[in-house]
Amino acid sequence: MEKLVSLCKRRGFIFQSSEIYGGAGSVWDYGPLGVELKRNLKDRWWHAMVRARDDIEGLDAAILMHPRVWEASGHVAGFTDPMVDCRVCKARFRADKLDDAQCPRKPSRKPGEHSDCDLTEPRLFNLMFKTTIGPVEDSASIAYLRPETAQGIYVNFLNIQQASRQKIPFGIAQIGKAFRNEITPGNFIFRTREFEQMEMQFFVDPAADHMQWFEFWKGERLAWHRSLGLAEDRLQFHQHSEKELAHYARAAFDIEFDFGGSLGFQEIEGVHHRGDYDLSRHQEYSGKRLEYVDQVANRRYLPFVIETSVGADRTTLAVLVNGYREEVVPGEQEGRVVLGIDPRIAPVKAGIFPLVKKDGMPEFAEKLARELRVRFPVFYDESGAIGRRYRRQDEVGTPFCLTVDGQTMQDGTVTVRDRDTLAQERVAADRVSDYLRLRLS
Amino acid sequence: MEKLVSLCKRRGFIFQSSEIYGGAGSVWDYGPLGVELKRNLKDRWWHAMVRARDDIEGLDAAILMHPRVWEASGHVAGFTDPMVDCRVCKARFRADKLDDAQCPRKPSRKPGEHSDCDLTEPRLFNLMFKTTIGPVEDSASIAYLRPETAQGIYVNFLNIQQASRQKIPFGIAQIGKAFRNEITPGNFIFRTREFEQMEMQFFVDPAADHMQWFEFWKGERLAWHRSLGLAEDRLQFHQHSEKELAHYARAAFDIEFDFGGSLGFQEIEGVHHRGDYDLSRHQEYSGKRLEYVDQVANRRYLPFVIETSVGADRTTLAVLVNGYREEVVPGEQEGRVVLGIDPRIAPVKAGIFPLVKKDGMPEFAEKLARELRVRFPVFYDESGAIGRRYRRQDEVGTPFCLTVDGQTMQDGTVTVRDRDTLAQERVAADRVSDYLRLRLS
Repeated sequence: MEKLVSLCKRRGFIFQSSEIYGGAGSVWDYGPLGVELKRNLKDRWWHAMVRARDDIEGLDAAILMHPRVWEASGHVAGFTDPMVDCRVCKARFRADKLDDAQCPRKPSRKPGEHSDCDLTEPRLFNLMFKTTIGPVEDSASIAYLRPETAQGIYVNFLNIQQASRQKIPFGIAQIGKAFRNEITPGNFIFRTREFEQMEMQFFVDPAADHMQWFEFWKGERLAWHRSLGLAEDRLQFHQHSEKELAHYARAAFDIEFDFGGSLGFQEIEGVHHRGDYDLSRHQEYSGKRLEYVDQVANRRYLPFVIETSVGADRTTLAVLVNGYREEVVPGEQEGRVVLGIDPRIAPVKAGIFPLVKKDGMPEFAEKLARELRVRFPVFYDESGAIGRRYRRQDEVGTPFCLTVDGQTMQDGTVTVRDRDTLAQERVAADRVSDYLRLRLS
Repeated sequence: MEKLVSLCKRRGFIFQSSEIYGGAGSVWDYGPLGVELKRNLKDRWWHAMVRARDDIEGLDAAILMHPRVWEASGHVAGFTDPMVDCRVCKARFRADKLDDAQCPRKPSRKPGEHSDCDLTEPRLFNLMFKTTIGPVEDSASIAYLRPETAQGIYVNFLNIQQASRQKIPFGIAQIGKAFRNEITPGNFIFRTREFEQMEMQFFVDPAADHMQWFEFWKGERLAWHRSLGLAEDRLQFHQHSEKELAHYARAAFDIEFDFGGSLGFQEIEGVHHRGDYDLSRHQEYSGKRLEYVDQVANRRYLPFVIETSVGADRTTLAVLVNGYREEVVPGEQEGRVVLGIDPRIAPVKAGIFPLVKKDGMPEFAEKLARELRVRFPVFYDESGAIGRRYRRQDEVGTPFCLTVDGQTMQDGTVTVRDRDTLAQERVAADRVSDYLRLRLS
């Protein structure tokens, strides 16, 4: 993980936020390559979940919502961690993680040793960020930064159903930022205070076979992660036990990815059967009927909700961890670092190099880069030995490198080198665009 | 505008946030059609500004940043509106807009009449939303929701320049949410407390011809808005006068769009020459050197910045206003409402209809919809008279309607109807995908 964090900074995937000011607590910025990788992931999710289906509608709800939303959802009362303060050193710890906590004043001491600490009773600390809206700072104008995007879907349920004329079963999907004032964030972009969710809420008839839909979405979502190239043996389901299950939930599975090292298997997505908890709470708190009207069967009911909720940052991290490898190259002294990212989500699709900086090769290669850039993200590089330029592209996961050499100037073909197999073949320069389109689809 | 707001709600472009709770103050949610329209706009900007150019890098910086960022930027001290309170009615007004303000207790009174008001002296009210980060609520843990995305670019300037190996002149671009606690938001999605910016900061050599780059970006950005189909006579430049110009700014132009009605010409984008103000402030406040090193000329310097900053929501509104028209249809009793949106950014590309619900037409049309949906957002509709289905698609800006009729079942062709010209032609069903690709490029 340390090597990956260093690579991410050096090559422009991910920087610490406000780094020149010493950083902002567990907040990260996506640099030129990171933003493209994450965009590709989000676009794939949006296409699979919204555009390619006729039974899911898209939404982009705002981060700021009416404060009553969070009373109805249960977050104001229950979205808390129990905290204890130490009266001696003034540090604050999660009460349920005291055994792992270390006194900040005595770093030599082992975690969990609190022999001369003077700890307060546990107090509940709400994880929502609070702010005030409008010019007057009073309690009526409190607003929260949403801790999840799901509530934006529930409160818009009827508006969307009516505008889109969808019939149950159907879903609503959105991608957006959420915020949690985590006490112990960490592990790079795995747990951060500002993060991005890709959530879909699927509304089903409680009198029909809703467990079948639950199983359907479990399967679909696992298949989606596999389609990103995440290794099969690094993905698993974790079923929530009775104890883990929220009181209203009928079933819940996490999709876990093996991040390796001390992190191991961790949740990257949750598939939850939430019953009619959310809609019935909003119906109660808003005083507005949120029932779906089935005009054919002449019934009104609150649908059940199957939720699929995936962390965009965690999935980005999983793709990076899954792809990172160091390997020996046959016949070469130095090894190489490769980000074996699926070509379809790689931030740069092709590196384009003139073999040497003369004989018209730079001009030919630059022209090729200009033509390809309209359709694919490509990177032109003429500096340093060709081997070094290959290594630079391997390290950021570029699947193809196109080299313009002496033969190009004679027959118009370029060398196409494959990142993973290292195989090289010659392709006519005017066919490269079609070649890439085929290899990237 | 009222008709447009109503259409936007009814058809699922834009809903009021938390509407079932009476709405959140000037915050809006993008519904199924709105989210696609805005995505298309943002994708076009990203392609034009980042992917199609080799001299601009992308970034996605976090909303939460180190609080010193906003001291350096001048927002903590200066991003304020002067406010006065009325001691009688407790209302708060912008001091510089008192002449337009109306007493909320006496709605019959004319704006600007404050005969028996007891107003306080003006006090400065900061427009940044404030929150606290981490578990302890003290002044050290204050965080602001960014009021602009630009600062995320400035603080990452050197990290990105080094990781991407760009040479000046080059730019950094990002799309992201920003927040301003506006006293008088309004006009639908024109001025909202939560909004989305598309900003690009272009770094140029202060010893070179930076005004030429300023002129270049003015031209490029105006051309981009025209490429969305915004009418030429509804777009204009507004040059900031000496009085309007920020003290550090060397020149500034707004690109204004004519929203019509009482709103008239309003800013949708700003093109600003900011000199080296931002980088020099961050250099001073962070204590870190932010100079660019020109290794060829052996010079170090702080570059000048040309900023192009466009509101994604305002541009979306401009596209909607620009496209909305009511017109008489020759030979028909009822008129029609059309959203004349450029086909490339229209949320739905084609409506697909069986002429009648029998003779295999629905099956044929559904199959065609399934095949097309993998590549284009399409909408299948079999309910109601065909004329009514056309009208529904006209109203949401769908450029093409494909109808499966009796002839289809014989020769495999479908009717393609053009939204704007109403012309109909027959196209073989298996050629429709290519036809759409051509018409949409």
